[in-house]
Amino acid sequence: MTDTPDPYKGYRGRGRELLKRLGARVWSDCTITTDTGEFSGIILPRSEQADDRHIVLKMNTGYNIGIAVERIQSIVEHDYKEAHYKIPEQEFPFDPAKPNVTLLGTGGTIASRLDYRTGAVIPAFSPGELYGACPELADICNLETKKLFGVFSENMGPEQYLITAREIAKQIENGVAGIIIGHGTDTLHHTAAAMSYMLQDLPVPVILVGSQRSSDRPSSDAAFNLQCAAQSAAHGELAEVLVCMFGPTSDRYNLLHRGTRVRKMHSSYRSTFRTLGDTPLATVTPEAPPEPLRRDFTRRDPERKLNLYDVFEERVAIVYYYPNMQPDIIESLIDNGYKGIVIAGTGLGHVNKPLYEPLRKACESGVQVYMTVQTLWGYAQMYVYDTGRDLMELGVVPLANMLPEAAYIKLGWALGMSDDAERVKELMLTPVNGEITEREQYNAYVVLQGGLPEVDAFLHDHWR
Amino acid sequence: MTDTPDPYKGYRGRGRELLKRLGARVWSDCTITTDTGEFSGIILPRSEQADDRHIVLKMNTGYNIGIAVERIQSIVEHDYKEAHYKIPEQEFPFDPAKPNVTLLGTGGTIASRLDYRTGAVIPAFSPGELYGACPELADICNLETKKLFGVFSENMGPEQYLITAREIAKQIENGVAGIIIGHGTDTLHHTAAAMSYMLQDLPVPVILVGSQRSSDRPSSDAAFNLQCAAQSAAHGELAEVLVCMFGPTSDRYNLLHRGTRVRKMHSSYRSTFRTLGDTPLATVTPEAPPEPLRRDFTRRDPERKLNLYDVFEERVAIVYYYPNMQPDIIESLIDNGYKGIVIAGTGLGHVNKPLYEPLRKACESGVQVYMTVQTLWGYAQMYVYDTGRDLMELGVVPLANMLPEAAYIKLGWALGMSDDAERVKELMLTPVNGEITEREQYNAYVVLQGGLPEVDAFLHDHWR
Repeated sequence: MTDTPDPYKGYRGRGRELLKRLGARVWSDCTITTDTGEFSGIILPRSEQADDRHIVLKMNTGYNIGIAVERIQSIVEHDYKEAHYKIPEQEFPFDPAKPNVTLLGTGGTIASRLDYRTGAVIPAFSPGELYGACPELADICNLETKKLFGVFSENMGPEQYLITAREIAKQIENGVAGIIIGHGTDTLHHTAAAMSYMLQDLPVPVILVGSQRSSDRPSSDAAFNLQCAAQSAAHGELAEVLVCMFGPTSDRYNLLHRGTRVRKMHSSYRSTFRTLGDTPLATVTPEAPPEPLRRDFTRRDPERKLNLYDVFEERVAIVYYYPNMQPDIIESLIDNGYKGIVIAGTGLGHVNKPLYEPLRKACESGVQVYMTVQTLWGYAQMYVYDTGRDLMELGVVPLANMLPEAAYIKLGWALGMSDDAERVKELMLTPVNGEITEREQYNAYVVLQGGLPEVDAFLHDHWR
Repeated sequence: MTDTPDPYKGYRGRGRELLKRLGARVWSDCTITTDTGEFSGIILPRSEQADDRHIVLKMNTGYNIGIAVERIQSIVEHDYKEAHYKIPEQEFPFDPAKPNVTLLGTGGTIASRLDYRTGAVIPAFSPGELYGACPELADICNLETKKLFGVFSENMGPEQYLITAREIAKQIENGVAGIIIGHGTDTLHHTAAAMSYMLQDLPVPVILVGSQRSSDRPSSDAAFNLQCAAQSAAHGELAEVLVCMFGPTSDRYNLLHRGTRVRKMHSSYRSTFRTLGDTPLATVTPEAPPEPLRRDFTRRDPERKLNLYDVFEERVAIVYYYPNMQPDIIESLIDNGYKGIVIAGTGLGHVNKPLYEPLRKACESGVQVYMTVQTLWGYAQMYVYDTGRDLMELGVVPLANMLPEAAYIKLGWALGMSDDAERVKELMLTPVNGEITEREQYNAYVVLQGGLPEVDAFLHDHWR
């Protein structure tokens, strides 16, 4: 290390030559003109191992791109400021008057950082770093943190569900006031469903939280979401498995979604998680405990005895129907030993005729086959059309308004609970916590980006 | 046939005995009390072949249920009115001053009727019946009708797409002012996408229309939708493949959705079709031509030369990712000779690590693999995370904000257009009509059930 930082840090060969020639430096806020257009942002440093053919730019959108050296015509520097992304680590203060909350780390964007070697965003969950980044947490609760593992959320699966559920049970036995699970957003709703089935009769809140923008970005929702989650875990009256994420696109409040009725609906918006076919349970801000929007939730009761059902059968699949689907799709699942299939059918729960025969074969050979709807809103109602009745006669069981994802996770769990086909079916059709509701609320068919006064008025007038 | 109708029509044995004993008749509007609850509706006649163990009730919701004889405790008749469901057939009048429109029938609920043999809803598309049911059509246009085939929409596939596209081309050559396609709603959006790719440079509108409630139900949307479709086909300025269905839940207006950006989002609501990641193109009522909500559409131009690309490769599949998906799902597709795979990944376009190896194998063996997002809203942006970059290196190509269904249909079409991998990729990444848009409009992340004044105000203020 030298006192004078290298203005072309990590660049070598052609890349370094280009920067020198055009008078641009690492950390320049600049506009790069290429043969295909202009790109504005900050030039990032690179690692020694990186190729010498690209300049990496952190665009104003927060995303990074690599621009090929030979396409760059000019670089105009507007500003220069070296970034310091290292988050200071600090010990969390303890206040005996405050509730104890445990934050369990699984990986994911809530603590992602930019990797300057590759210019990519990488997960880096360290609870101490989180506190360092967001000291307001200490005003809400005492926080203990524990890293369970560190995986991208698309790599979460039964192994991680079981570890997480068992750790939550242990923490509850130790008497915590609430639990926060830090989780990547991609499959946060799947994990929320898994925890809903595995952890029944919760005495305290279990709050899943993530962030859609990493904490090195100005529009990051990490700190806001984490504080809302801490309020919900420490002071919330709702003792359920809940997802705590942005309500409107602005950081005005978060919504608390029931773990079995929530789904990620936008790849990049912070308001991506939406309750489907039902309404969210509460709003929450960093400053105050959650405000319920409804009354039908399970209330906190530290005396309630938790039931842990830590089982999962892995040979389960979702079959997402598309026109002209061929029998081989179902036949392969039978041949490969799948024990359960959740179909996401069209309309009220339909698939085409060529699938009837393999579905009959599946049901006859003991594979459990259930029907959900790919419309996401509404019910599988297979008695309306002849074709639906035919499918039910083959042994396909409609799951009312259970979301395909919630059904997939539940089937893995139910097949873990019992080897008896009738018992599994009974488990599937008996809602644990809202995954089937008797009717859809009149105002439940809605996705709102929020932030506009009319929309918020709508939310508040109609969700209360 | 006798002059006095049988008051227990179709009922025999125990069922007939029960009706006699409780003094209830077929066509009674009544309340049936059972050991599990009360059911209100109209007792339907049964066929001679039906069992004698059930009374079939058409409930006030429009759905039919069979109630087991032994559970019925009492039947209270409120009213009695024999239903006449036969729709009169009439010749469509011709007015030389009106535009000529052709209605192509494919089957589906727009003309479904109740089958009194089984108590189920069956498709029964006869264009003459349609006119008989909705004479207002003659005020809008001259209508010719042609039944192409009669299949439930979940059984639509490439064979039907090709027949439909070729017939549309023929009709356009014959000089019609516009075309209506009557279609079941389950896969209406898939067919709309297929027509968008197969029929390019349309001189006149091609309007797909269906109904969510069969025409024997009081809340049917069949006649309203058909009139809106006729207005759009005969008088609309928008010469694109469009889906014409309910905007709000009330029958105030229909929306015209671009064929590549629309999806069925509710299993039973009439307002089920929504434009995703974009805004609808126009509103339309039965009384007047469509009113555009935007300016960026293709205008009617009878001189424009239609290009028909009537090709489709059937060995294409959608893989809808779920946590813990195993390699066998991809391997089976390779083994079974699939030529194209559209993944609906999580988040910005991700799948788990165990799928990398089979995906590499797929790409290396010439299978075209594309990535879309199962969030439905937002973009596949695979350069943000290491994992996305890894997938791209394997050969997986992100499709920006193309909907999984629109991508599946496009890949079948593109593989039909060319055997050359690079050409197929070029076709996939070059939007034909809005299936990829450069950015998502600021107000495009929204599903509204509509009908509430605030919501309509929102629609009209923000979509214009």
